[in-house]
Order: sequence, then C-alpha cells, then structure tokens
Amino acid sequence: MRIFSASPSASQAGERRAKRSDLSDSLALPRGFRFAATACGLKRNNKLDLGLLTSDTPASAAGVFTTNLVQAAPVVLSRRHLRDSRGSIRAVIVNSGNANCSTGQEGARASRATAIATARTIGCKPDEVVVSSTGVIGVPLPVHKILDALPQLVAAQSANADQFAGFTRAIMTTDLVPKWVSQSCRIGGKRVRLVGCAKGSGMIHPNMATMLAFVATDAAIAPVLLQKLLAEITPRTFNAITVDGDTSTNDMVLVMANGASGCGRIAAGSANLRIFSAALEKVCHALALQIVSDGEGAQRVVEIEVRGARSEASAKQIANTIATSPLVKTALAGGDPNWGRILAAAGRAGVSFDPDRAEITMAGIRVYRRGRAMPFNESIASKKLLAPHVKISLELRQGQASARVWTCDLTAEYVRINARYRT
Amino acid sequence: MRIFSASPSASQAGERRAKRSDLSDSLALPRGFRFAATACGLKRNNKLDLGLLTSDTPASAAGVFTTNLVQAAPVVLSRRHLRDSRGSIRAVIVNSGNANCSTGQEGARASRATAIATARTIGCKPDEVVVSSTGVIGVPLPVHKILDALPQLVAAQSANADQFAGFTRAIMTTDLVPKWVSQSCRIGGKRVRLVGCAKGSGMIHPNMATMLAFVATDAAIAPVLLQKLLAEITPRTFNAITVDGDTSTNDMVLVMANGASGCGRIAAGSANLRIFSAALEKVCHALALQIVSDGEGAQRVVEIEVRGARSEASAKQIANTIATSPLVKTALAGGDPNWGRILAAAGRAGVSFDPDRAEITMAGIRVYRRGRAMPFNESIASKKLLAPHVKISLELRQGQASARVWTCDLTAEYVRINARYRT
Repeated sequence: MRIFSASPSASQAGERRAKRSDLSDSLALPRGFRFAATACGLKRNNKLDLGLLTSDTPASAAGVFTTNLVQAAPVVLSRRHLRDSRGSIRAVIVNSGNANCSTGQEGARASRATAIATARTIGCKPDEVVVSSTGVIGVPLPVHKILDALPQLVAAQSANADQFAGFTRAIMTTDLVPKWVSQSCRIGGKRVRLVGCAKGSGMIHPNMATMLAFVATDAAIAPVLLQKLLAEITPRTFNAITVDGDTSTNDMVLVMANGASGCGRIAAGSANLRIFSAALEKVCHALALQIVSDGEGAQRVVEIEVRGARSEASAKQIANTIATSPLVKTALAGGDPNWGRILAAAGRAGVSFDPDRAEITMAGIRVYRRGRAMPFNESIASKKLLAPHVKISLELRQGQASARVWTCDLTAEYVRINARYRT
Repeated sequence: MRIFSASPSASQAGERRAKRSDLSDSLALPRGFRFAATACGLKRNNKLDLGLLTSDTPASAAGVFTTNLVQAAPVVLSRRHLRDSRGSIRAVIVNSGNANCSTGQEGARASRATAIATARTIGCKPDEVVVSSTGVIGVPLPVHKILDALPQLVAAQSANADQFAGFTRAIMTTDLVPKWVSQSCRIGGKRVRLVGCAKGSGMIHPNMATMLAFVATDAAIAPVLLQKLLAEITPRTFNAITVDGDTSTNDMVLVMANGASGCGRIAAGSANLRIFSAALEKVCHALALQIVSDGEGAQRVVEIEVRGARSEASAKQIANTIATSPLVKTALAGGDPNWGRILAAAGRAGVSFDPDRAEITMAGIRVYRRGRAMPFNESIASKKLLAPHVKISLELRQGQASARVWTCDLTAEYVRINARYRT
C-alpha cells in the first residue's frame, strides 16, 4: 500500500500555519470522480466556501451522522436522501461559513433547494445529492448565494488535484490547514484508489460523526457492505478522537465508492474485503489524526492508551475521561509531567480499578507505579512531553482489554479562538 | 437572619486580586471554637500553610468526602475517624501545599502521625481529629514540618477574627482570595452562629465533595441529624457548581456543631430544625458561589438554569453539560451571545427534548425561541454578558422540573495557571 497525506505529524505551530498548496503530483485520485470549489460569498475576503464532489456514475454510499439531538437541516436531509436512494449517491455539495442549523423551516427549505438545484444542474435525482453545511449556528443561510454560484461550480468540475485541493479548502472553518490523505491497494488485479478529506477543529468528540469527512474510492462495493465497514471503522478512528468534548450539530462522514477502477464487486467475507477495509481504515485513521493535530489551538497530538482493563468499554471510558480533562490537557500544553491529574481523571471515570496496582507511563517514562511516584528527571520528561506527538499509557492490571483515544492539548490559543468566534 | 461574607459578588479582576484582610469587627464567631494558622514551610515564601480549628468540647460532626476512586490518605483517615468517633470531633488540622495523595503507606503514616500528635497536644483521642490536605498530588508529605509546628500552632489558638482569617488563608492553594461567610439565627431564644470557610479553584465538579469547606456552629444537634441535613443541602450547593469538570482526590465538607450557644438540642421535624437548616444552606450556598467566583482564571459566575424538564435529574444533566462545555465557557469569557453552543451542548446531554419548542434566555435577553434565532442587539447583549454575574435559562416546555448549576467562564488565564501549576 502507498499512502500520501497532508503529513499529520506537521503539527508544530510554524508548519501548521504555513500555506499548504503542495498537493503532490504523485496524488492519483480515484477514477470517475470530479471536484470543484468556489467562493460564493458566505465567508469574507473571497475565501473558498462552496465545494462539489461528483461521481460520474451513481456511487455506493455510506454515512455516519452526528448523534446530537439538535441536528442541522442538511444532516436531516442527507440522512433521508441516503435512505431514500438506498445508498446510491451522485454528488456532495458542501458549504462552509454557515451551519444552517437552528434556522427553522426556512433552513430546511434552503437545504432542499440546494439539493434540487444541484441535481438539476448535474442531471440526477435530488435524493442522489448529499448536502452538508458547517460554520456558525442560528444564522439564516443566504441560499441564493449557493444557487447563484452553482452553474459556474459545476462547470469548473475536474478530476485534477487542483480542484481537489480547492474542495479541501472550501470545507474549512477555523482549520489552519486542509486535511487529506490518499491511499491505494490492489484488488482483483486492479489498482483501487481512495482519497479522503476532512475538516474539524472544535466541537470534536467521540460517539458522533464528529466532523465533516468525505472519502471517495473507485472500488466496487455494495452500499450495505460499505455501511457495515464504515460502522466498524468509525469507533477506532473518527470516534476515538476528542478536541474539546463538544459535539457538532452538523457532522457527517460520507464514503462513496463508484467502482470505476474495474476491480470487480468486493464480496462479504472475501480476502478483497479485508484488503479494502484495511485501506479504508488507514484513510479514516489518518484523517482523524489530522483533525486532532489541527485542533483549535493545539500544539500536539496526545495518544491516551488504557491497558489491562476488564473490558474495552471500560478502557475507553477511562481513556476518554483522561482525554477530556481540562487539567490534563492544560498540563500537556505546558509539557508538565503531572501524572497526578491523569490518575485523578481516571479515578472519576466511573470505572472500578485499584490505583495501587496501576502504572502510568508518559512519553516513555514510567512516572507512577503501584500507588507511588517513580523518580524521574523532570526536565527530560518535560522536554519529551513538548514533542508534537506524545503517548500516555495507563496500565490497570485487572484484565486484557485496552483502548486508545487521541486528543490534543488545551492552550490559551483555544480560548482566544473560541471567545470571539462569531465576531 | 444576618449574613456577612467575603462578598461573592466581588468577582471583577481588580477586586479579586486585592488583598482581603478586612474581616469585619462585626464578625461574631460561634462560641466555643478556636482557630490558628501558621507557616510550617510546605508553601514557599513563608506563606500560611497549616490551619487548626478546635472545639472546646466534642462537637457533633458531619462530613461529605470526594467520590473519586483515588482518595488521598487524609480523606481515608478522616472518613474512618468520623465513623469511629460516631460523629464526635474536637479538631480539624489542614495543610495546603501538599495533597498527600498517591504517596503510598508512607502517606497514610503521615496523616496518622498528624492526627495522633494533634490529639496529644490538645488532649483528645486521635479519632476525634479530622486531617485534611490540599495541594500537589504524588509528592511525599514532609510531615515533620507539620509535627514541628504543632506546639506553636496550638499555643496560638484564639477565638478572634484574626486567627480565623489566618485559617481561611492557610487552606488556600491557587485561590486568589480567602472565602468565608458568617450567618446567625435565633433558636430557643438564643442567638446561634455559623461560620464557614472554603478553598477551591480547580478540580471543582459536582457529585463529589468538591473542595475543602469547614463550617463551625454553636448550635446543638445530633451527628446523625446533622449528617442528614448536610446530605440534603450538598446537591443544591457544593455539588451544583463546576469549574472544570475535574474532581479532586482530597475534597471534603465538614460541619461541626458544639452546642455552645445554649440553644438546646435541635430535634428532627422541629421548626428549629427548619430555621437551622435554612441558615446552614445559606452558608453552604455562599461558600459554593465564592468558590466558582474564584475559579481558576474566572472572570464571571454563570448560573445555568434548565426549566420545564420532565425530571430534576434530566434538568440537572442538561445544565451540567452546558456548564462544562468548553465552547460555552469560552464564549462566556468573550461575552459572546453564542446561543448555538448552548443548544448544541444541551443536544448532546443524553436527554430527549424538542429543540423546536425550546427557548434560551441569556442575561435577560431572549435569543432563541421555537427552533429559531430571535432578533436582538448584539452589542447590548455582549455588554450584559460581560457582567460579573450572568444568568442563562433554557426552557424545554416538556414538564415542571428544573435545576440550577453555577459555573465560570474558561479563560486564557485558566490555561496559564494550569499549564505550569507544579513549577
């Protein structure tokens, strides 16, 4: 397998703020997909804010949507379209700059109008169109801006990397960098390609489709099987990351597979399914980590692993509690090897374990063992904890189950970004 | 009733940072209690770090302790002493600067030695002594510093306001101001006095005894009845506040009633019990709000009220989810009337409600009603939201139950304090 990606490890501030228009020539997009992006005026300063992804033929589609009780109009509509079309989708139209959430009947009409106009322009049924919006909540969507821009957007469609790069930028909100990954594998003697992109900086938390992510592949696979795969992969990837514990009202992960590689239908239980599944998981994992790495104000990605638990569920519950603790996350911002906060967070997770048998390792240094602090060199530990990727392990010694979640540090920059988001 | 307190409303930065040594002459402490404080060297710069509270006679005592699975040595010991003495306590000794948590057998021995030495010095049994510690986790407690300071601490005991003021300072960690309140009521023709003090800036969250709080009163009441009262009052006061969702390993609320007012035993079901209960609740409520007001980095106290819920539990669950949302709390730091984040937080609380019937009021301004934004003047709203006390209401229109929680805003200052706490 080959993998190209918008280096998720490039998380240091300088690199992260750098303009990234270096979509390599080596990026080979899956066949039969086209992309386009434009600035329709929802964002200021003529920034890209409207993206279109189309498949030349109906693609098998699978989706995971936010589980927030408050659901934006495009989420409600797209969920219905995926059901009504039986997972057969031709296009995804995404706007940033406005979430079209809590916008009443008018908001529902705006999403519907977007789907209908897109379908008419590219020549398909409205329920073959997925509509997605991201941005501020509660502001009426000036849908005429989208409708006015549609003809030129459709005309600009292309299968080249430039338009794909535009699409990855058109879905950004407070993201500092576009997030994308490409991957390929061989199935039935053919090269099958996958490309994915995502957005998401705040309101990132598990148990929801916690961001926007779109994956296109020229594999051939039935919608039902694709949905099953996505449901299996999501808990280990998109639902294993957290930036701030908040959950957006607009999130979705959508995978489209149009079969244009000519690889032949991937069957349930086949070796080909395992190959494709591994490739799809790599794409989802890479996108998930890129989202954490670009978490609002984040300086580093932190992997929290809980081992030796009685069940995977309890391991994940403890890992999540540690990963969302403001005290842990601020300590990580300062490179402080403050394992007491990790232990205290684990202790309030609602899972029973014996602190006197537990063990904590931070950035490879064992700092706590059997109820006591271990001696370690604080300045070396602090230096290691300031790396762009840090791993923290908690060993419970009560069973065989484990779980991993990825989080980022909580910085003053996060507060600055969110204290004046709307203005 | 008269109430004097360290004005919980004085939460503006300037006032909060001001030295507060203005314990009024009007402060009348309950009879039969003495206080003392000293600097034993656990904190730097000769700051007060050891406090003693004694009752001249055995006092009825009631306690609420942290529910964190990880419990500090003094919590384990004090819980046992309260049980073994059947709620009869003579002294509380508290140190700051070291939590004596995750310090192994040595830590347990240190707490025990503190209780034994205190008992010997004042002349009571070890299990009539409550020991309390607050500060950094995982560092061995240099207990000899406490033991060496004990004779002079006991000698310094006094019933005057100066020593009480010292005690309120000796329990502080990252607190900017000491927190205390006094209250009185008439029972059986006698004036009954209550005085309380508390510490707590970070690791403040409900469903635990979430800080250190000590209340002394000269009322006469049986330990069992006092414990029942405290258990009733705690959910509405100390367990209804949150600073960062984290829970300390060291928290306790302790109430001591020594009967020195001569008011006669307060009986279950009596009118006197109602009078005393109201006074005790005022003390607990005032201390809880002072803790939020002095939350690490906090600029303002925010009351979150959820009304029209099907049950008090579901109302509280939604209120807590809003009160702990980093996105809501950062918006509050910037005076941003971003009701979308409030609605989104409510939507992920795990409680079913209809967003299209809900209503949100921020600082008296109705911003959301029946699925839609309401027009309002943003600059007026923002100004009102920058006040030191802000109220946010969410009306669900599905039932009669309601709940209130108090939180503070999340500021860059919170991050600065916590990113380098240990150094």
